Amino acid sequence: MLNALHLPVDLDTRASGVRLRRATAADIDSLMALLADDPVSAARGDVAAPADRQVYLRALASILGNDSNDLLIAVDGDGTVVGTFQLTLIPGMSRQGATRILVEAVRVRSTLRSAGIGGAMMRWVTDAAATQLDAAMVQLTSDRARVDAHRFYDRLGFVQSHLGFKFEAGVGGTR
Amino acid sequence: MLNALHLPVDLDTRASGVRLRRATAADIDSLMALLADDPVSAARGDVAAPADRQVYLRALASILGNDSNDLLIAVDGDGTVVGTFQLTLIPGMSRQGATRILVEAVRVRSTLRSAGIGGAMMRWVTDAAATQLDAAMVQLTSDRARVDAHRFYDRLGFVQSHLGFKFEAGVGGTR
Repeated sequence: MLNALHLPVDLDTRASGVRLRRATAADIDSLMALLADDPVSAARGDVAAPADRQVYLRALASILGNDSNDLLIAVDGDGTVVGTFQLTLIPGMSRQGATRILVEAVRVRSTLRSAGIGGAMMRWVTDAAATQLDAAMVQLTSDRARVDAHRFYDRLGFVQSHLGFKFEAGVGGTR
Repeated sequence: MLNALHLPVDLDTRASGVRLRRATAADIDSLMALLADDPVSAARGDVAAPADRQVYLRALASILGNDSNDLLIAVDGDGTVVGTFQLTLIPGMSRQGATRILVEAVRVRSTLRSAGIGGAMMRWVTDAAATQLDAAMVQLTSDRARVDAHRFYDRLGFVQSHLGFKFEAGVGGTR
Protein backbone atom coordinates (compact mmCIF):
# COMPACT_ATOMS: atom_id res chain seq x y z
CA MET A 1 0.00 0.00 0.00
CA LEU A 2 0.98 3.63 -0.48
CA ASN A 3 1.28 4.79 3.12
CA ALA A 4 1.48 8.49 2.20
CA LEU A 5 -2.14 8.56 0.95
CA HIS A 6 -4.62 10.25 3.29
CA LEU A 7 -7.52 7.80 3.40
CA PRO A 8 -10.44 7.46 3.73
CA VAL A 9 -11.71 10.63 2.10
CA ASP A 10 -15.14 11.89 1.02
CA LEU A 11 -15.72 12.22 -2.74
CA ASP A 12 -17.94 14.94 -4.15
CA THR A 13 -20.37 13.10 -6.46
CA ARG A 14 -24.08 13.20 -7.37
CA ALA A 15 -24.58 9.93 -5.45
CA SER A 16 -24.94 10.32 -1.71
CA GLY A 17 -22.23 9.75 0.87
CA VAL A 18 -19.51 8.34 -1.40
CA ARG A 19 -16.15 7.76 0.29
CA LEU A 20 -12.84 6.56 -1.09
CA ARG A 21 -10.92 4.00 0.98
CA ARG A 22 -8.33 1.26 0.60
CA ALA A 23 -9.70 -2.16 -0.41
CA THR A 24 -9.45 -5.11 1.97
CA ALA A 25 -9.85 -8.89 1.49
CA ALA A 26 -13.45 -8.50 2.71
CA ASP A 27 -14.19 -6.52 -0.50
CA ILE A 28 -13.07 -9.33 -2.82
CA ASP A 29 -16.54 -10.38 -4.03
CA SER A 30 -17.52 -6.75 -4.74
CA LEU A 31 -14.23 -6.22 -6.60
CA MET A 32 -14.71 -9.36 -8.70
CA ALA A 33 -18.27 -8.28 -9.55
CA LEU A 34 -17.07 -4.80 -10.54
CA LEU A 35 -14.32 -6.18 -12.80
CA ALA A 36 -16.86 -8.50 -14.48
CA ASP A 37 -19.41 -5.64 -14.85
CA ASP A 38 -17.66 -4.51 -18.04
CA PRO A 39 -17.72 -6.17 -21.47
CA VAL A 40 -14.03 -5.48 -22.25
CA SER A 41 -12.86 -7.06 -18.97
CA ALA A 42 -15.30 -9.95 -19.22
CA ALA A 43 -13.91 -10.77 -22.67
CA ARG A 44 -10.44 -11.06 -21.06
CA GLY A 45 -11.61 -13.64 -18.53
CA ASP A 46 -12.70 -11.47 -15.60
CA VAL A 47 -16.13 -13.06 -15.13
CA ALA A 48 -16.35 -13.25 -11.32
CA ALA A 49 -16.18 -17.05 -11.38
CA PRO A 50 -16.18 -18.46 -7.82
CA ALA A 51 -13.24 -20.70 -8.81
CA ASP A 52 -11.13 -17.56 -9.43
CA ARG A 53 -11.63 -16.18 -5.92
CA GLN A 54 -8.25 -17.38 -4.62
CA VAL A 55 -6.47 -15.92 -7.66
CA TYR A 56 -8.00 -12.48 -7.01
CA LEU A 57 -7.34 -12.72 -3.25
CA ARG A 58 -3.66 -13.44 -3.95
CA ALA A 59 -3.52 -10.53 -6.41
CA LEU A 60 -5.08 -8.16 -3.88
CA ALA A 61 -2.63 -9.30 -1.18
CA SER A 62 0.28 -8.68 -3.60
CA ILE A 63 -0.96 -5.16 -4.32
CA LEU A 64 -1.57 -4.24 -0.67
CA GLY A 65 1.73 -5.85 0.38
CA ASN A 66 3.75 -3.78 -2.10
CA ASP A 67 4.75 -0.28 -0.98
CA SER A 68 4.56 1.10 -4.55
CA ASN A 69 0.99 -0.05 -5.17
CA ASP A 70 -2.48 0.48 -3.76
CA LEU A 71 -6.04 -0.61 -4.55
CA LEU A 72 -8.75 1.94 -3.80
CA ILE A 73 -12.51 1.57 -3.75
CA ALA A 74 -15.35 4.08 -3.71
CA VAL A 75 -18.19 3.07 -1.39
CA ASP A 76 -21.62 4.73 -1.29
CA GLY A 77 -23.64 5.68 1.81
CA ASP A 78 -25.12 2.15 1.97
CA GLY A 79 -21.68 0.52 1.98
CA THR A 80 -21.99 -0.67 -1.65
CA VAL A 81 -18.74 -0.70 -3.64
CA VAL A 82 -19.39 1.61 -6.62
CA GLY A 83 -15.91 2.15 -8.07
CA THR A 84 -12.30 0.97 -7.98
CA PHE A 85 -8.87 1.69 -9.40
CA GLN A 86 -5.24 0.73 -8.77
CA LEU A 87 -2.33 3.13 -8.31
CA THR A 88 1.35 2.34 -8.92
CA LEU A 89 4.04 4.87 -7.93
CA ILE A 90 6.97 4.71 -10.35
CA PRO A 91 10.32 6.47 -9.92
CA GLY A 92 11.91 7.36 -13.27
CA MET A 93 14.88 8.89 -15.05
CA SER A 94 13.18 10.67 -17.95
CA ARG A 95 11.54 14.10 -17.72
CA GLN A 96 14.34 15.06 -15.33
CA GLY A 97 13.79 12.29 -12.85
CA ALA A 98 10.01 12.61 -12.70
CA THR A 99 8.05 10.28 -10.42
CA ARG A 100 4.84 9.03 -12.03
CA ILE A 101 1.55 7.60 -10.86
CA LEU A 102 0.20 4.88 -13.12
CA VAL A 103 -3.56 4.30 -12.88
CA GLU A 104 -4.84 0.84 -13.84
CA ALA A 105 -8.17 -0.98 -13.82
CA VAL A 106 -10.51 2.01 -13.38
CA ARG A 107 -14.08 0.75 -13.00
CA VAL A 108 -17.38 2.37 -11.99
CA ARG A 109 -20.54 0.33 -11.33
CA SER A 110 -22.47 0.35 -14.62
CA THR A 111 -25.76 1.48 -13.04
CA LEU A 112 -24.02 4.60 -11.65
CA ARG A 113 -22.04 5.76 -14.70
CA SER A 114 -23.48 9.31 -14.79
CA ALA A 115 -23.19 10.10 -11.06
CA GLY A 116 -19.76 11.73 -11.35
CA ILE A 117 -18.02 8.95 -9.40
CA GLY A 118 -15.34 8.28 -12.02
CA GLY A 119 -14.63 11.99 -12.36
CA ALA A 120 -14.36 12.45 -8.59
CA MET A 121 -12.01 9.45 -8.31
CA MET A 122 -9.72 10.68 -11.09
CA ARG A 123 -9.68 14.29 -9.83
CA TRP A 124 -8.62 12.90 -6.44
CA VAL A 125 -5.73 11.10 -8.19
CA THR A 126 -4.54 14.10 -10.23
CA ASP A 127 -4.85 16.51 -7.30
CA ALA A 128 -4.67 14.91 -3.83
CA ALA A 129 -2.77 11.69 -4.62
CA ALA A 130 -0.25 13.43 -6.90
CA THR A 131 0.48 15.98 -4.16
CA GLN A 132 0.65 13.42 -1.34
CA LEU A 133 2.96 11.16 -3.39
CA ASP A 134 4.97 14.07 -4.87
CA ALA A 135 4.36 12.85 -8.42
CA ALA A 136 4.90 15.09 -11.46
CA MET A 137 2.70 13.06 -13.77
CA VAL A 138 -0.33 10.77 -13.79
CA GLN A 139 -0.58 8.32 -16.66
CA LEU A 140 -2.90 5.57 -17.80
CA THR A 141 -3.91 3.65 -20.89
CA SER A 142 -7.41 2.96 -22.09
CA ASP A 143 -8.51 0.23 -24.51
CA ARG A 144 -9.14 1.59 -28.02
CA ALA A 145 -12.72 0.28 -27.74
CA ARG A 146 -13.54 2.55 -24.76
CA VAL A 147 -14.48 5.67 -26.74
CA ASP A 148 -16.57 7.16 -23.92
CA ALA A 149 -13.62 6.73 -21.53
CA HIS A 150 -11.34 8.63 -23.95
CA ARG A 151 -13.69 11.64 -23.92
CA PHE A 152 -13.88 11.37 -20.13
CA TYR A 153 -10.08 11.55 -19.73
CA ASP A 154 -9.89 14.42 -22.27
CA ARG A 155 -12.39 16.41 -20.19
CA LEU A 156 -10.31 15.81 -17.04
CA GLY A 157 -7.24 17.36 -18.69
CA PHE A 158 -5.39 14.22 -19.71
CA VAL A 159 -3.50 14.51 -23.02
CA GLN A 160 -3.77 11.58 -25.41
CA SER A 161 -0.13 11.77 -26.47
CA HIS A 162 0.87 8.11 -26.57
CA LEU A 163 -0.08 4.75 -28.04
CA GLY A 164 -0.28 1.74 -25.73
CA PHE A 165 1.25 -1.62 -26.69
CA LYS A 166 0.72 -4.96 -24.94
CA PHE A 167 2.55 -8.25 -25.34
CA GLU A 168 1.01 -11.45 -23.96
CA ALA A 169 3.97 -13.28 -22.43
CA GLY A 170 2.04 -16.51 -22.14
CA VAL A 171 3.59 -17.67 -18.87
CA GLY A 172 1.78 -18.20 -15.59
CA GLY A 173 -0.71 -20.89 -16.61
CA THR A 174 -3.50 -19.75 -14.27
CA ARG A 175 -3.73 -16.32 -15.91
CA MET B 1 16.12 -3.57 -8.23
CA LEU B 2 14.40 -6.72 -9.43
CA ASN B 3 16.48 -9.41 -7.73
CA ALA B 4 14.96 -12.27 -9.75
CA LEU B 5 16.56 -11.05 -13.00
CA HIS B 6 19.56 -13.09 -14.17
CA LEU B 7 22.10 -10.42 -15.05
CA PRO B 8 24.44 -9.67 -16.74
CA VAL B 9 23.53 -11.46 -19.96
CA ASP B 10 24.89 -11.39 -23.52
CA LEU B 11 22.59 -9.89 -26.18
CA ASP B 12 22.58 -11.21 -29.74
CA THR B 13 23.00 -8.08 -31.89
CA ARG B 14 24.89 -7.01 -35.05
CA ALA B 15 27.24 -4.91 -32.87
CA SER B 16 30.01 -6.83 -31.20
CA GLY B 17 30.09 -8.03 -27.60
CA VAL B 18 26.90 -6.33 -26.34
CA ARG B 19 25.89 -7.27 -22.80
CA LEU B 20 22.89 -6.26 -20.73
CA ARG B 21 23.52 -5.34 -17.09
CA ARG B 22 22.02 -3.31 -14.27
CA ALA B 23 22.93 0.41 -14.27
CA THR B 24 25.02 1.88 -11.45
CA ALA B 25 25.71 5.45 -10.32
CA ALA B 26 28.97 5.30 -12.32
CA ASP B 27 26.83 5.16 -15.51
CA ILE B 28 24.99 8.42 -14.78
CA ASP B 29 26.73 10.56 -17.42
CA SER B 30 26.19 7.92 -20.10
CA LEU B 31 22.54 7.61 -19.10
CA MET B 32 22.01 11.39 -19.20
CA ALA B 33 23.65 11.53 -22.64
CA LEU B 34 21.45 8.70 -23.93
CA LEU B 35 18.26 10.36 -22.65
CA ALA B 36 19.28 13.64 -24.32
CA ASP B 37 20.19 11.84 -27.58
CA ASP B 38 16.55 11.90 -28.66
CA PRO B 39 14.52 14.88 -29.89
CA VAL B 40 11.30 13.89 -28.08
CA SER B 41 13.10 13.58 -24.71
CA ALA B 42 15.17 16.70 -25.25
CA ALA B 43 11.96 18.68 -25.84
CA ARG B 44 10.76 17.52 -22.39
CA GLY B 45 13.86 18.88 -20.63
CA ASP B 46 16.23 15.90 -20.73
CA VAL B 47 19.23 17.77 -22.16
CA ALA B 48 22.09 16.26 -20.09
CA ALA B 49 22.68 19.57 -18.29
CA PRO B 50 25.44 19.21 -15.66
CA ALA B 51 23.16 21.04 -13.18
CA ASP B 52 20.66 18.15 -13.46
CA ARG B 53 23.20 15.48 -12.47
CA GLN B 54 22.02 15.27 -8.84
CA VAL B 55 18.38 14.99 -9.94
CA TYR B 56 19.21 12.03 -12.18
CA LEU B 57 21.44 10.42 -9.51
CA ARG B 58 18.56 10.61 -7.02
CA ALA B 59 16.16 9.15 -9.59
CA LEU B 60 18.55 6.27 -10.32
CA ALA B 61 18.96 5.58 -6.59
CA SER B 62 15.15 5.54 -6.20
CA ILE B 63 14.80 3.02 -9.04
CA LEU B 64 17.60 0.72 -7.82
CA GLY B 65 16.37 1.01 -4.21
CA ASN B 66 12.85 -0.11 -5.12
CA ASP B 67 12.25 -3.85 -5.34
CA SER B 68 9.60 -3.44 -8.09
CA ASN B 69 11.84 -1.43 -10.43
CA ASP B 70 15.11 -1.83 -12.29
CA LEU B 71 17.22 0.18 -14.72
CA LEU B 72 19.09 -1.83 -17.33
CA ILE B 73 21.78 -0.80 -19.77
CA ALA B 74 23.27 -2.44 -22.85
CA VAL B 75 27.05 -2.01 -23.07
CA ASP B 76 29.13 -2.82 -26.16
CA GLY B 77 32.50 -4.61 -26.26
CA ASP B 78 34.34 -1.31 -25.62
CA GLY B 79 32.29 -0.58 -22.49
CA THR B 80 30.22 2.12 -24.21
CA VAL B 81 26.60 2.40 -23.04
CA VAL B 82 24.51 1.84 -26.19
CA GLY B 83 20.99 1.32 -24.81
CA THR B 84 18.81 1.57 -21.73
CA PHE B 85 15.32 0.90 -20.43
CA GLN B 86 13.44 0.73 -17.13
CA LEU B 87 11.29 -2.15 -15.91
CA THR B 88 8.49 -1.93 -13.34
CA LEU B 89 6.85 -5.11 -12.04
CA ILE B 90 3.16 -4.49 -11.28
CA PRO B 91 0.80 -6.88 -9.48
CA GLY B 92 -2.80 -6.46 -10.64
CA MET B 93 -6.40 -7.62 -10.24
CA SER B 94 -7.61 -7.54 -13.85
CA ARG B 95 -7.02 -10.31 -16.39
CA GLN B 96 -7.47 -12.78 -13.51
CA GLY B 97 -4.80 -11.35 -11.28
CA ALA B 98 -2.14 -10.94 -13.98
CA THR B 99 1.27 -9.53 -13.03
CA ARG B 100 2.58 -7.07 -15.63
CA ILE B 101 5.96 -5.70 -16.62
CA LEU B 102 5.85 -2.04 -17.62
CA VAL B 103 8.73 -0.90 -19.85
CA GLU B 104 9.61 2.81 -19.75
CA ALA B 105 12.29 5.05 -21.24
CA VAL B 106 13.60 2.72 -23.95
CA ARG B 107 16.57 4.36 -25.67
CA VAL B 108 19.23 3.17 -28.14
CA ARG B 109 22.26 5.29 -29.07
CA SER B 110 21.27 7.11 -32.26
CA THR B 111 24.42 6.08 -34.16
CA LEU B 112 23.58 2.39 -33.57
CA ARG B 113 19.86 2.33 -34.41
CA SER B 114 20.09 -0.43 -37.04
CA ALA B 115 22.32 -2.83 -35.12
CA GLY B 116 19.46 -4.82 -33.61
CA ILE B 117 20.16 -3.62 -30.07
CA GLY B 118 16.62 -2.40 -29.35
CA GLY B 119 15.15 -5.63 -30.70
CA ALA B 120 17.51 -7.75 -28.61
CA MET B 121 16.70 -5.72 -25.47
CA MET B 122 12.93 -6.03 -25.98
CA ARG B 123 13.07 -9.73 -26.86
CA TRP B 124 14.98 -10.26 -23.60
CA VAL B 125 12.13 -8.47 -21.77
CA THR B 126 9.29 -10.41 -23.41
CA ASP B 127 11.08 -13.78 -23.07
CA ALA B 128 13.69 -13.95 -20.27
CA ALA B 129 12.48 -11.17 -17.96
CA ALA B 130 8.80 -12.17 -18.26
CA THR B 131 9.72 -15.76 -17.35
CA GLN B 132 12.08 -14.82 -14.51
CA LEU B 133 9.51 -12.39 -13.05
CA ASP B 134 6.50 -14.69 -13.75
CA ALA B 135 4.69 -11.91 -15.65
CA ALA B 136 1.75 -12.64 -17.95
CA MET B 137 2.03 -9.39 -19.90
CA VAL B 138 4.57 -6.78 -21.00
CA GLN B 139 3.22 -3.31 -21.69
CA LEU B 140 4.57 0.07 -22.73
CA THR B 141 3.48 3.31 -24.30
CA SER B 142 5.19 5.16 -27.11
CA ASP B 143 4.80 8.83 -28.01
CA ARG B 144 2.51 9.32 -31.04
CA ALA B 145 5.44 11.04 -32.79
CA ARG B 146 7.61 7.90 -32.69
CA VAL B 147 6.26 6.26 -35.87
CA ASP B 148 9.38 4.11 -36.39
CA ALA B 149 9.10 2.83 -32.82
CA HIS B 150 5.47 1.81 -33.41
CA ARG B 151 6.52 -0.36 -36.38
CA PHE B 152 9.35 -1.77 -34.26
CA TYR B 153 6.96 -2.87 -31.49
CA ASP B 154 4.49 -4.28 -34.04
CA ARG B 155 7.27 -6.44 -35.51
CA LEU B 156 8.17 -7.73 -32.03
CA GLY B 157 4.59 -8.97 -31.50
CA PHE B 158 3.23 -6.15 -29.37
CA VAL B 159 -0.42 -5.31 -30.05
CA GLN B 160 -1.36 -1.63 -30.25
CA SER B 161 -4.63 -2.07 -28.40
CA HIS B 162 -4.65 0.99 -26.12
CA LEU B 163 -4.35 4.76 -26.13
CA GLY B 164 -2.00 6.41 -23.63
CA PHE B 165 -3.06 9.46 -21.62
CA LYS B 166 -0.80 11.71 -19.50
CA PHE B 167 -1.67 14.40 -16.99
CA GLU B 168 0.99 16.87 -15.85
CA ALA B 169 0.38 17.21 -12.15
CA GLY B 170 2.54 20.30 -11.87
CA VAL B 171 3.98 19.56 -8.43
CA GLY B 172 7.61 18.90 -7.66
CA GLY B 173 9.08 22.15 -8.91
CA THR B 174 12.41 20.68 -10.02
CA ARG B 175 10.74 18.41 -12.55
